[in-house]
Formats: sequence, structure tokens, C-alpha cells
Amino acid sequence: MKIHDILAMTLLALCCEGAWAGEHTRFVDPFIGTGAIEGGLAGNNYPGATVPFGMVQLCPDTHEAPDWYNASGYDYNDNRIYGFSHTRLSGTGASDLIDILLFPTTGDATSSAFSHEDEKARPGYYSVMLADEDIFAELTATPHAGVHRYTYPEGSSRKVIVDLEHSANKESWNRKIINGQIRRTGDRTLEGYRIITGWAKLRKIYFTIEFSEPIAHLDLSDGDRVYRGTSSVINGSALKAVAEFGGTKPLECKVGISTVSIANARENLAAETAGVSFDALCDTADAMWEKELSAIDIEGPEESCRTFYTALYHTMVQPNLFSDVNGEYIGADYSVKALGKGERQFTTFSLWDTYRAAHPLYTIVRPDLAAEFVNSMLRHYDDYGYLPIWHLWGQDNYCMIGNHAIPVVADAVLKGLPGIDAAHAYEAVMSSSTTPHPNSPFDIWEKYGYMPEELQTQSVSISLEMAYDDWCVAQMAEKLGRDEDVARFNKRAMHYRNLYDSEMGFFCPRDALGQWIRPFDPLKYGANGGYPFTEGNAWQYYWYVPHDVEGLIDLTGGAKAFKSKLDDFFTITDASGEKNDNISGMIGQYAHGNEPSHHAAYLYVDAGAPAETQRLVHTIMTTLYNNTSSGYAGNDDCGEMSAWYVFSAMGFYPVNPASGEYYIGTPTFDKCTIQLPTGKDFVITASRKNPDSYLVKKVALDGAPLKDYKLTHGQITAGGHLHFDLK
Amino acid sequence: MKIHDILAMTLLALCCEGAWAGEHTRFVDPFIGTGAIEGGLAGNNYPGATVPFGMVQLCPDTHEAPDWYNASGYDYNDNRIYGFSHTRLSGTGASDLIDILLFPTTGDATSSAFSHEDEKARPGYYSVMLADEDIFAELTATPHAGVHRYTYPEGSSRKVIVDLEHSANKESWNRKIINGQIRRTGDRTLEGYRIITGWAKLRKIYFTIEFSEPIAHLDLSDGDRVYRGTSSVINGSALKAVAEFGGTKPLECKVGISTVSIANARENLAAETAGVSFDALCDTADAMWEKELSAIDIEGPEESCRTFYTALYHTMVQPNLFSDVNGEYIGADYSVKALGKGERQFTTFSLWDTYRAAHPLYTIVRPDLAAEFVNSMLRHYDDYGYLPIWHLWGQDNYCMIGNHAIPVVADAVLKGLPGIDAAHAYEAVMSSSTTPHPNSPFDIWEKYGYMPEELQTQSVSISLEMAYDDWCVAQMAEKLGRDEDVARFNKRAMHYRNLYDSEMGFFCPRDALGQWIRPFDPLKYGANGGYPFTEGNAWQYYWYVPHDVEGLIDLTGGAKAFKSKLDDFFTITDASGEKNDNISGMIGQYAHGNEPSHHAAYLYVDAGAPAETQRLVHTIMTTLYNNTSSGYAGNDDCGEMSAWYVFSAMGFYPVNPASGEYYIGTPTFDKCTIQLPTGKDFVITASRKNPDSYLVKKVALDGAPLKDYKLTHGQITAGGHLHFDLK
Repeated sequence: MKIHDILAMTLLALCCEGAWAGEHTRFVDPFIGTGAIEGGLAGNNYPGATVPFGMVQLCPDTHEAPDWYNASGYDYNDNRIYGFSHTRLSGTGASDLIDILLFPTTGDATSSAFSHEDEKARPGYYSVMLADEDIFAELTATPHAGVHRYTYPEGSSRKVIVDLEHSANKESWNRKIINGQIRRTGDRTLEGYRIITGWAKLRKIYFTIEFSEPIAHLDLSDGDRVYRGTSSVINGSALKAVAEFGGTKPLECKVGISTVSIANARENLAAETAGVSFDALCDTADAMWEKELSAIDIEGPEESCRTFYTALYHTMVQPNLFSDVNGEYIGADYSVKALGKGERQFTTFSLWDTYRAAHPLYTIVRPDLAAEFVNSMLRHYDDYGYLPIWHLWGQDNYCMIGNHAIPVVADAVLKGLPGIDAAHAYEAVMSSSTTPHPNSPFDIWEKYGYMPEELQTQSVSISLEMAYDDWCVAQMAEKLGRDEDVARFNKRAMHYRNLYDSEMGFFCPRDALGQWIRPFDPLKYGANGGYPFTEGNAWQYYWYVPHDVEGLIDLTGGAKAFKSKLDDFFTITDASGEKNDNISGMIGQYAHGNEPSHHAAYLYVDAGAPAETQRLVHTIMTTLYNNTSSGYAGNDDCGEMSAWYVFSAMGFYPVNPASGEYYIGTPTFDKCTIQLPTGKDFVITASRKNPDSYLVKKVALDGAPLKDYKLTHGQITAGGHLHFDLK
Repeated sequence: MKIHDILAMTLLALCCEGAWAGEHTRFVDPFIGTGAIEGGLAGNNYPGATVPFGMVQLCPDTHEAPDWYNASGYDYNDNRIYGFSHTRLSGTGASDLIDILLFPTTGDATSSAFSHEDEKARPGYYSVMLADEDIFAELTATPHAGVHRYTYPEGSSRKVIVDLEHSANKESWNRKIINGQIRRTGDRTLEGYRIITGWAKLRKIYFTIEFSEPIAHLDLSDGDRVYRGTSSVINGSALKAVAEFGGTKPLECKVGISTVSIANARENLAAETAGVSFDALCDTADAMWEKELSAIDIEGPEESCRTFYTALYHTMVQPNLFSDVNGEYIGADYSVKALGKGERQFTTFSLWDTYRAAHPLYTIVRPDLAAEFVNSMLRHYDDYGYLPIWHLWGQDNYCMIGNHAIPVVADAVLKGLPGIDAAHAYEAVMSSSTTPHPNSPFDIWEKYGYMPEELQTQSVSISLEMAYDDWCVAQMAEKLGRDEDVARFNKRAMHYRNLYDSEMGFFCPRDALGQWIRPFDPLKYGANGGYPFTEGNAWQYYWYVPHDVEGLIDLTGGAKAFKSKLDDFFTITDASGEKNDNISGMIGQYAHGNEPSHHAAYLYVDAGAPAETQRLVHTIMTTLYNNTSSGYAGNDDCGEMSAWYVFSAMGFYPVNPASGEYYIGTPTFDKCTIQLPTGKDFVITASRKNPDSYLVKKVALDGAPLKDYKLTHGQITAGGHLHFDLK
């Protein structure tokens, strides 16, 4: 039975209560990845309401001040809710945003117990019963607004706390609120802003809140400075308002936000919510998600559908819209920019993670949006001089290493995505490959042909990743006929070889004199500085030559030796010292919980052992993903862990994300239809000898066997039929 | 001989070298007040180039990081120059701004010795020989730009350091650079910005620098991260550029700034300097000053002319233009605002100081500009909810006490200055008198009728000053027919009486139970918190009832007792504990170095002893002002100390600055003509029995004796002739 048919029936039962209206949204479980349970790991996802790629993520905060281990603000293991705030990151290892907290109360409480049994979440909707308050809280979202509906117990006081002091942990990133304002600007309106430092070095967030009832009483405070009913405006850095309301109907609070101004927050809110009911906004949010998720239609076991669509959902909760409805946004230089008509600016580019699979996925399902992401990065370049490393709230926080906007931009140009000025893109890529900046000393790179560890720590990881980015530049130069640059960057792309120590059989650190740095321990982990490897060890970085796997095979000693090395990688369980915090989801030395070796299972294809790829990918999909709150093997990292699953479950994966080539793995579903934006379909089917068959006997595109177990982007976008015969 | 005639002759000699072209600018000595010498005190003025009320103050910085005691960045006692930065405050006790430092060098130096003998300054022009470098540096300014001309020794290297790290002391006000950029955007152009916290909680400053020669070599650095010739852009928080130039002609560097964007900095620079030579810009600056200073024409001793015109100049180096040529500026809510055509936004309102005499002076010589200042404050109110306390770089830093934008706004409305929306002004004043904010707990004020010290520290000073502001509100309410408010605010205006302790014969602190707080020592000083008096003692605050001197006389026990109290005030030299840092310029307990008792000498008029006023005012003018670098008796406080002199030297002073009434003192000059903007003149003449006569035998307006020794604003603006007969 096709899921369409199952759903058609299910919907009859569900639509009356307005829940899970969509054919695809029905499978999304926003609680997946929201907390570590049963010895699992934290995806750091959140269950709150958001629309695809929206600016607002409206969600309960279960921590007073979230930090590294509950970065999204919500942790499934918690049992108190401190309110509902409007912005957050999904799956990151560090916390930021967490702006404009609302908490409804009947008295003076600032938090309430809750139970997961009283909690519901679906795309664009979240509800919970606040147990201590007996208040039923519902949340929905539009691109620039969060909408709350609070049902208070009959006859109770009806208060809402607006808390501008609440944020991610102020002990992290020197986070500090510089200034803020709360102001009553109408009978039913509170407006204001806060300016805060943090992981994003400086953020301004303006808001307007429209309540469905007049404010009957208003207390304002700035820390210990409290004005009870005596003021309509307060400025300061620790602001709270307590608004009290009459009435009996559920109280709705519509909250529009903007990075630019209160006026823009108002315009955003009006454009998206004026005259629209809470229920209608929920329906719109669901419809928006339905439209996005329907890009891929699958048939398969219910549980796998839930994993798949939740993963697809998680790839689409960011990048986040950053510009207002009038096209204004705060540029990387902190000045207000005005976009052209129809243009939008996006942020939240966790590029070290997402260039691997999330961005390639966007080029298939939303090439138009993938181009908007690239154009957003190019605007950042215009203001900043080079492309972003980790683009947070419109700014570069330089998190991680490499310059992996380059593969994203290069891939977009190489794939010919519409609406990108290739010359401009090339200028940005060139500048980002030649302008030295933190962790990217290109002068040293060109002088030495590798990063000497004493001149640039994380030298091995950076050298490997930089070589890859350079290969992308060379490809782009070739495509655009910039012959003068092709040789230079092809040479740089081969710099990785200068760190291959054949004696050790690993990529090893060298000093500026060219000496190998000893002692060397391939099992030992580095973090984010002070060691040649970044959030990983030499084993995990061994495979990081996605642009020259053939060359890596040669260095290793041929295909057999390469396979043997892979075998060791996936089996050796020895450890040396402590693992890095980001390392989890182990299979031997392979760590699915972090990105550096995410493509490694697919390299068996090049070792002539595609069955090993299939076995491992199947193992990863079935043992390192599940539908619990600890459904990911590590941080989802802005959807990258999810994107790995989406690709792998479809049966292929972009080992070199800018090559336009995908390695064949093993499909989870019997049928998967990518509904290409051109109107064509790319259909993947599987016939299984047994229900649990996953090994590929034969794979054929439109009947022609794919003997090398590789598929090109062009073959996908042309539409066609990929069939797997599974034994 | 009229100064016109003297000058006509002098100019013949001077104009050939282009110096001191103006009839009035000739008397300005920008070194006055720039440093404490000969046991004197620091005015904290600066000698650099600026135009009247301009955004840019281009001046050498003689400290690596100026702070409280050299707040303007220049101290006459220093002997090294660290470069020339573009923004600063004049006469404040705290340092901020100090943005975008340029230093020319032939080698690697970052500072140079200099001698005052090699230094020249006149309005809009400054020059110095950098002794270590043998570089002759000249500076001039436009409203939004600073222009440097560096003459390097023949055959030397020609370098300019651009330093974005240089600022006021980073140990003060948690000052921290959040981010910045330096970028080569053309052969001859460096652009960028910095974002910095400090006394103004958050500032953005964008700049564009156009050099007259192409940049031959560029080093960029961010702290220890140094790129020598390898980069065209750098982002970070400790940025420097070293640009090297060829050529042989003097190097010109035109620096445009903006608070909004690099694009606006460019537009500002182009509008004010495109195609204009350095010398022509100097002439324009001089002409601008000449136009402003010519508002008052005087005849008198050369030395007094220098004191007078330098003081008048110091009243006009701020408030500062804050909006760009296109009318954009950063509002109090940190969003970009767009002004209407012809409108401008101003900042630097050190209101606790300047409402006393500087703002009243503007209402006489520049009523149009006084109205622009008021409208700037009203725009601040629109964004902030109440009028500013101390308006720095568009933000309120809440420095000092009271809400003395209220007298300024009220005075403007009461005097009928053109272009102010009185209803809007009243709304702002009302909101600022009823919305509690730091140091202004109006709820407590109305509940207790005074500030109980345990609920609001600095309670006596705040009560006195708040009562005065309330009187201003009442006057405005009366004028605008807001009868319902008149009684309320007249009542509040009399709250000051609730702190008069007849037992002590002083205004004394009370607690919330109404008990006088003991022990009480009228000689003991408070600073800015933790004591009932603010930067003063009970003696200095005794006189702070400018709106009800009659009432104060009654409290004191009649005119005789009042005169006796004044006599004690000006003679008792006893001390108790340490003086507050701001206290200096003592005559008995009177401290001319700070503002609270600035009007006290004039109160003898109300005690029936105008000759004592004349004697004391003469003493203050002749002993507490001089033409050295320590020419002021304390911080000039954004021109307030200067404004006291300007008024007093003309022969009158606004004891109650919002009353439209001036108390007669004694004129310094034999003739003083206020060239009113209406085209009328108000002429003050003096005939002296002896050249040093200062006691008034008779004073008459248009022949009619002023028996009460008072003059009204209307009498001045009507034009007329005030004649003093001095014995």
C-alpha cells in the first residue's frame, strides 16, 4: 500500500481535530533528537514550532540558560519549562539565540513542571500542559513570527511574563546583554528589543507582541528596579514585563521579530498574521511543511518513514531566513542592507557540517533555495571580504576549520543552479582562498605546501580540508575558463600529500622545517586547537581526500591495502586517552556522531568492495538512527546528520559534495520518488529477496547497470529510474 | 579702536600665510583648557580641528588610552603624540569616542615626541611637527570628515598607520571592541568600521579614507595576526593597517565617518570634500567659525577677547552633528532612522551641565539650532520613552542626576523657538517626569514628597534638582493650557521644602519614615552615589532652588539672613574629609570648578546686595579663567564653564535657565553687540570710571534703569541698548 493511500484513510480520522493534516508531515516526529535517553546521545534538536527555513523557532526552554549539552534550549530529559522563546539552533554543540521568552502564569511562577504525556508536536505546532499552572500552551509559527495560545484555567489570573534577560548561558562566549527595551505602545501591544553579545558577536533583536486582549496591568522591571503598574516603558539590560489580562477566551500572543527595527518587526507580523486565526496559522505552517517534504515521496515501513521525514524536516529547519518582508537585513558589517525585489537573505550556515550532504541535498530538492543560500553567502562576502565559515545571525563566528562555503558555492556554479552570478561567485571563492584569516593562513599554505603545526594548529585537519576546498576552486576555475588559476589550485589541492607519512601510514603533523612531529598516536583525539587534528583523530581524518580518492588509494598502497585500512578503521576499538566530546556513534574508529569521516563507509566502493559499503551504511542507518529522543548518534549539526540519513536511505551519498557524483549504497525504501522541481521524477525502487535484504545484487539506471556504483547529479536531474535488486 | 579695525590691519599681515583669517576666529586659542599647568586644573578641552557642532573632532592623542584625567585624549602636559583620531568630547570628566587613529611614520614608530613650540592651532586647523619622524602634520575638518596633510622628509619612507584598536581606556566602562574591519577598496582607499562598547553602551563607527597617493604596500594585522602585503581585508577586534605610499608631495588623507554605514561615510566625505584642497577646507572651516563667533562682537582688552572667544568657541564644539548628509542616523533604539528633508540630528548633550547656561546661550545666538537640539532630544524620546539625561553618541549614559532636558525643552517652548511641536514637546516632558527610570523614581517622589535616602541615594541633590525640573513642567503646562497638570507639578516643584531642616539650616537627608538622617555634616562631600549629595556638599546645594529664590530666602529667614548665609558660603574655608574630584575653583565653599552652585554669586541680587554679585562675578572671571592651558577652574563640561563666562562677561546670567530672566552682573567689555539672528542688535556698553572699574553704579536698558538688576529674554531679542555705568 502506498503511503498516500494509508494517509488518505488516516487523514479522515485525524483532520477533524486538525492534527497531522499533511500526507508527509504526518511522519515527522519533532521529538526525535531532542535529548539523550537510554544511554544514547543528544541530537540537540528541538520540538518547537517553526516553518521551513523560517526566522522563528518557537519552542519551550527547559533550561534557565541552555549551554553546550542542551544547546537548542530544550532537553527531553528535563521536566520543567521556563517559557517559550523564539529563536534557537537545531543540533549544534553550542548555544546561542534563545530570544524573547514568554511564560504564562496564573500567579508569580516563572517555570512549571510538565510531562511528555501532555506534550504534542508536529511541524509548525507544539502544545503542552503546564502542570503547575494548569495552563494549556500552544505554539505555532510563521517565517518571522511566533504565535502563542494560552488557555488559562477558568477564573484564574491571566498573566504573561515577557523576559528579555533569558538567553543561552551568559558564562559562554562572554554573552552579555548590552541594552534592551520593553514598551507598551498600544492597549494590546508590547514592543522592544535587546542587544546581546555571544557566539554571534553582536545581535539586535526587535519585537512586537500583539495580545488578543487589552493589557489590564503591567509591571516592568530591570533586575532589582521594579515598577508595578507605574510605567509604560523600561530600558535596561535585565528586562522583564508581567502583563495581566482580563477576558475569558484563550489568550493569543502574536510575536513578530526583526533584526533591523521595531517598525520592521511590526511589518513582518502584519504581513504574516494580520487577521489570521491561530488555527489557520497552524494549517498554513503544516501546508508549508507539506510542500517541502513532498519533494521526496517514499514507500516503506512506518518507522523508517518517521526517521526519514523527520530527518528531511531537520534539514529544512535551517538555513534561516534573515531578511524582513521588506527586504532589509543586517549585513556582516552590521549596517542595514536593502535587497532587490524578491530577494531574501538567509543565515545559519554551519558549513563545516552541512557542505557535506545538506547543501548537496538542497541542490536536488530545492535548487532555487540552494541558489538563494549561495547568494546570501555572496552578500556576506561583499561585506566581509571572504565567504563565511559558520554564519550565525548574519555573522561569522569562525567555528571549526576550512572554508566550506567554497564547495557549496562551487557546487552551485558547477551544477548551474539558476540565479547565481558565476563571476561574482568566482571572485568570492578566489578571495576566500587567498585572503588569510583565522585558521586560514593561505600565505603559509602556499609557502610550505602544508600547515606546519607550530604556525597553524589543527594543521593536519586544516591541510586536508583546505586541499579539498582548493580542488573546488580549481574545478570552478576550469569551468569558468580561468586557466591562470587552474594550475595554482590544482597544485594546492595536492598539498595534502605533503603530510602523508608513509612510515606511519597516516597523515601526520610536520613542523616548519619539514620534520615529522613525534610522538604520533593515530588514536589520540584533538579538539578545536592545540593539536594537529580537529574534533577527531588520525584515523578519522585518514579518509579526508574526497577529491582524490584514487590518490589516497595510491598513497595507501593500492586498492587492497586501502580496503584493509578501511577494515581496520571500522574494527579497531582501541582507545588512547579521552575521546573528544563530539565523538560518538562508534564503529571501530569510525565516529558517526561527528562529520570528518561521514563519507568513509562509501569509500569501499573505490576499494572494489561495494558490499562493505552496503553493509556498513545499512548498519549505520539501522543502529545509529532511531525514532526516540536520542535518535541521532550525536549532534544533528544543523541537519547534517539528518542529510546523511536522507541520502543514504535513498541509496546514494555525495562523497565529494562538489563533484556532482554520488556513491551508491543501499536503499531503505522499496520506492522513493524525488519530485524534481522541473516536474520530472527521479524514482528509486528496490526489489528485495527477503524483507530485510540490503546487499545489492544489481543496480541499474533506466535499465543500464551502474557497474562503478556511481551516479551523477545530471542523471538525477534528468529524471529516471534507479532500480536496486537486493539479495 | 574697534576690533574690526585692528583686525583689518592684522589680516593684511596674516592672510598671506592663510592663518587666522577671521575677525573673530583670530582670538580663539584652542590650547586654553587643554591641560593643568602651574597648579591649575584641567578643562579637558582639546586643540584639534573641528567645525561648529561637527561630528568630527580631529586631534592628536597624547595618551595611548585616555581616561578620566585627560578625557579629551589631549593633555597639554604630555610630550608624545600617538596619532590623530577623529572623535572626542570637550571638557568632560570621562572619556569616550577617540575613534580611527592615524599616525604617519617614516619607519616603524607608533608615537613621536613633539614640542608645543612646533604646534599651532586655530579654529578648524591644527599642525604639529612630529619630532622623532620629522613629519609635519596638519589637520582640518568638515562636519563629517577629518582631513590630514602629512609632509614627510624628502626621500623617506611614507607610511600611515590606521589604528582601530586605539580608544579611550579599555579599563573604563567595560570598554571592549566587539568587531571591526579594515579593507582596501580602491587604489587609494581604505574603508571599514569598528563596533565598541564604553560610556556609550554600544557604538558603531564606519569610515572611508581617501589618500592622495595610491597605496603601494599594505600590512594588515589583528593583534598578533599579521599579514604583510598578503591581504586586502581584515576583520577582528584589534585591527591595524600600515599603508605605504610613493610620491613626493605632501600626503593628504581624507577621512569620512558615519554611524550608519560605509556607504554613508563615503557620501558624507564626497559631499564635503570632493575636489576641495586641504587649504580650501581650512578656509571653509575658518569661515564657518567666523560666522558662528560673529554672533557676538566685542571690544575690550586683547586678553579678555581671547578668553571670551575661546569660551564662545568651546560652547560651539558641541552638541555634535550625529546624522549623515543623507539624513540617516542611529536612533536610541539602535535602528537606522531617516530624517525629513533639511532635518538634522544632534548628540553630546551633557545636560546636567549645559542646561544651566550653554543652552540658554544657544537660544540667544542660534535659536534655530537650539530648536534643532530640542528636536533631537524629542526624537530620542520617541525611541526611548523619556528625554535623555546625558546623550552620548545618540544614547543615554544616565550620567549625573535630574532630567535636565526638561528645562531645555521647556525653555525652548516658553521662548517660542521656531520649528518645535509644542504638543510633542509637552508629551516628552510629561513622560520624562512620570516614567520612573534610573535615579528618577517618580513614584517615590510623589509618594513621599522627597527622596528618602535609603530608597534613592543622592536624595537631597536629586530632590532639589527634580523640584526644579517639575517647576519647568508646570510652566510649560500653564503656557499650553494643560491646567490639570499645573497644580500637580507646582506642588512637586515645592517638594524641595520637605528637605529643609531648619534646625540645621540646610537641606538635609531624610529616611522613608520622615526622620532626619544624622550625623549631618554640611561640609562633607558626596560623589555619584552612596551619599545624599552629588559631586558636592550641603553648602553647594543650598542654593539649588533657582525657581523659588524667594521661597529659599523665606526658609533662610529673610533677605538679611540669606545674605549672611551667602557671605558664609563664599568665605568659610573649613573642610571635612576629602573633596570630590570634581570640586575645584574654590571661593569659600563655592566651587566654580563644578556646576551645582554656578548661579550662587548672582543670588546676592535677590538678597539686595547686587554689588556682592558684581564683586564675586568679577573675581571669578578674573581669577578662575585665564588664557593658559589651565584656563578653566575645572572641567569645561561640554562648554558649560565657558558659557558661564560668556554670559557673565556680557554682564548677565540665567540664574533660572528656563525663566527667560537674566540676573545682572558686571560686564567685562566696553562694548558687546549681540547680532541677533533677526537682524536686530542687542548692544551692551559700559562706561568705567577707571579702566578696572567693575561695580555697577547704574544699569539702564534703552535709558530706563533696571532697578531690580534683572533683564528678560524678550528684552534681549527685541534688540536694544543695555548701558552700564561702572564706578
